[in-house]
Amino acid sequence: MRIADIREATASIRSDIRNAVVDFSQMTISVVAIESDVMRGGRPVTGYGFNSNGRYAQGGILRERLLPRLRDAAPADLLDDDGGNFDPFRIRAAVMRNEKPGGHGDRAVAVGALDMAVWDLVAKLADVPLWRLLSERYNDGAADERVLVYPGGGYYYPGKGLQKLQDEMRSYRDRGYRVVKMKIGGASMTDDLARIEAVLGVIGQGGDLAVDANGRFDLSTALAYGEAMAPFGLFWFEEPGDPLDFALHADLAAEYDGALATGENLFSLPDARNLLRHGGLRPDRDWLQVDPALCYGLTEYLEIVAMVEAMGWSRRRLIPHGGHQLALAMAAGLGLGGSESYPGVFQPFGGFADDTVIEDGHARPGTHPGIGLEAKAEMFAEIQRLVGA
Amino acid sequence: MRIADIREATASIRSDIRNAVVDFSQMTISVVAIESDVMRGGRPVTGYGFNSNGRYAQGGILRERLLPRLRDAAPADLLDDDGGNFDPFRIRAAVMRNEKPGGHGDRAVAVGALDMAVWDLVAKLADVPLWRLLSERYNDGAADERVLVYPGGGYYYPGKGLQKLQDEMRSYRDRGYRVVKMKIGGASMTDDLARIEAVLGVIGQGGDLAVDANGRFDLSTALAYGEAMAPFGLFWFEEPGDPLDFALHADLAAEYDGALATGENLFSLPDARNLLRHGGLRPDRDWLQVDPALCYGLTEYLEIVAMVEAMGWSRRRLIPHGGHQLALAMAAGLGLGGSESYPGVFQPFGGFADDTVIEDGHARPGTHPGIGLEAKAEMFAEIQRLVGA
Repeated sequence: MRIADIREATASIRSDIRNAVVDFSQMTISVVAIESDVMRGGRPVTGYGFNSNGRYAQGGILRERLLPRLRDAAPADLLDDDGGNFDPFRIRAAVMRNEKPGGHGDRAVAVGALDMAVWDLVAKLADVPLWRLLSERYNDGAADERVLVYPGGGYYYPGKGLQKLQDEMRSYRDRGYRVVKMKIGGASMTDDLARIEAVLGVIGQGGDLAVDANGRFDLSTALAYGEAMAPFGLFWFEEPGDPLDFALHADLAAEYDGALATGENLFSLPDARNLLRHGGLRPDRDWLQVDPALCYGLTEYLEIVAMVEAMGWSRRRLIPHGGHQLALAMAAGLGLGGSESYPGVFQPFGGFADDTVIEDGHARPGTHPGIGLEAKAEMFAEIQRLVGA
Repeated sequence: MRIADIREATASIRSDIRNAVVDFSQMTISVVAIESDVMRGGRPVTGYGFNSNGRYAQGGILRERLLPRLRDAAPADLLDDDGGNFDPFRIRAAVMRNEKPGGHGDRAVAVGALDMAVWDLVAKLADVPLWRLLSERYNDGAADERVLVYPGGGYYYPGKGLQKLQDEMRSYRDRGYRVVKMKIGGASMTDDLARIEAVLGVIGQGGDLAVDANGRFDLSTALAYGEAMAPFGLFWFEEPGDPLDFALHADLAAEYDGALATGENLFSLPDARNLLRHGGLRPDRDWLQVDPALCYGLTEYLEIVAMVEAMGWSRRRLIPHGGHQLALAMAAGLGLGGSESYPGVFQPFGGFADDTVIEDGHARPGTHPGIGLEAKAEMFAEIQRLVGA
């Protein structure tokens, strides 16, 4: 068994939306196809992957560093012990050869796109949905039939008033979501509080609303928002400050009793470990949102799950950022706390398979082999156009 | 005043050497030229820059994200208040538009290459050496006439025995260096200790020898090396463990009385601040090696100097990694602790200007306008070949 071909391309996921720190009008992602030499139904079994939104395509790193190393590796070095399937850990080691430690940024994003394709391929070769493969290998055969999901929405965009924000939240409720999320920090605190109250007017209770500052606040601003929002009893207060300012998180957690969530901009096991060591987060209420499609992939994420548990946390406190099918499969198969979802943005890559039903804020994992990317028709057509054989 | 043209290219700095974690046989860097519309002697005033070794060229990020933003910026937004020169802080803000916080890796390296060209251009437009401009703007007019320098050497390479290692160290002494550095962690501890003793046989005392593990060790190995090396009284023990494992550094610092040094793989102000907050380093003896040509440039480095001082450290504890002329100019003009040097490796980019004399382990900054890259003939010819007009 060997890799027959690897293809990569850049896709646009441009959206006229912004959060507190960036707009997404130029946003791109990398798409990767890994074609094996195993033929089924007259076609090679092929895995597909892409990185999450927010950190751009990584074609340079893929073409100049990662893919040449993968092509140069001895085929046997990429397989598991009995040679029956590819080994994602060995593939990661091959593509990370001669990379220095530290500096986990764009490189982690590039590996994340590649690693998604590897796991899609591995599950397809095993002819099972990825969530089932993960359940058997890493969760003693247990899996969740229903996964908590919430839409990553409530963005700022030109001309969007309270009415349109309410309409957006109503549309999520109509689609079956219960917990919803909105951006804060891109307006004044007065305006943001009015936006929060407008949304609460639609969804009823603060326990169903998460707010996301995208790392915008300094400590005093985060404390002021925390104090003002405390009476709402929000689902969580996400990325209050710079993702690497662990002391800020510790100081905020000492004052704000509600749940905090962060981690989408931590791209490695050492960075995530530092958050738990130094960030003052509380295992009984806070959430870790490390995104496998930004942080060297599911492969690194499995090591992060082990680290989190070794530090006394439950894996139920993990809800991956990204809103992609990989995160849904991981949440179901590994027994995580849930998964973000993007029903309306970052199209065609945001969101789950076309046949995924959202009921009472939960989604069921599908039965498609691999990650099930083929079951999201518009996205898969774009993937085929970009990196099809 | 405006930017007339920006050019970038990839240069090879391949070397048949390795440290404890990577080999440099495929190593590349990005080279950047920023051409202004100011003409002098019939030619446009142009700044040149490149990133440091170890983290590869960043052409993808430069071409796809940073340079389009710089080309799209309004010219006036890139100038200082009176319009008399470019403002590196405003240029950094322009190229970092729509970039999320956290994830400081390859992006920081790409900005580092670009930022070096910006500062070279700013000093050339002011018609002064960069060290003098830095002295006037950020050091109350003070500057060091002599800068502590040490060669980043003692690498592993095929067939290199103790004799060749000793010859290498003897050659540094013959060139005027006093403190020298060697790699450890790429062999057994027994072999490494024999290598250290062989080098001490040439240079005399441990206080003139730094050792560098390139982040290879876990805590128990770092402690074992520390205990074994303590009697030598080394100049420093560099990158004992993963650069982001701050707790490891704190535990080692509690046991090892000698000086520690780290920071070349921390690429931002928040990462460097975390090292000081959580790494247990001692302001009276330890060293910070953040590299401007990897960490968003001298622009971010100036903010790091301010942060370091605000946390009670002296800027004399800062010795930038990288062995390039920018670091030498910064050390002289800002009054840092010194600069690494690469007299023999990473050619033609390693090392200082051709007329730089090393005496008693110190180098004098030159009188060439800008960084003085033109005064390193072989390197500048390569820069001209790659990104000349």
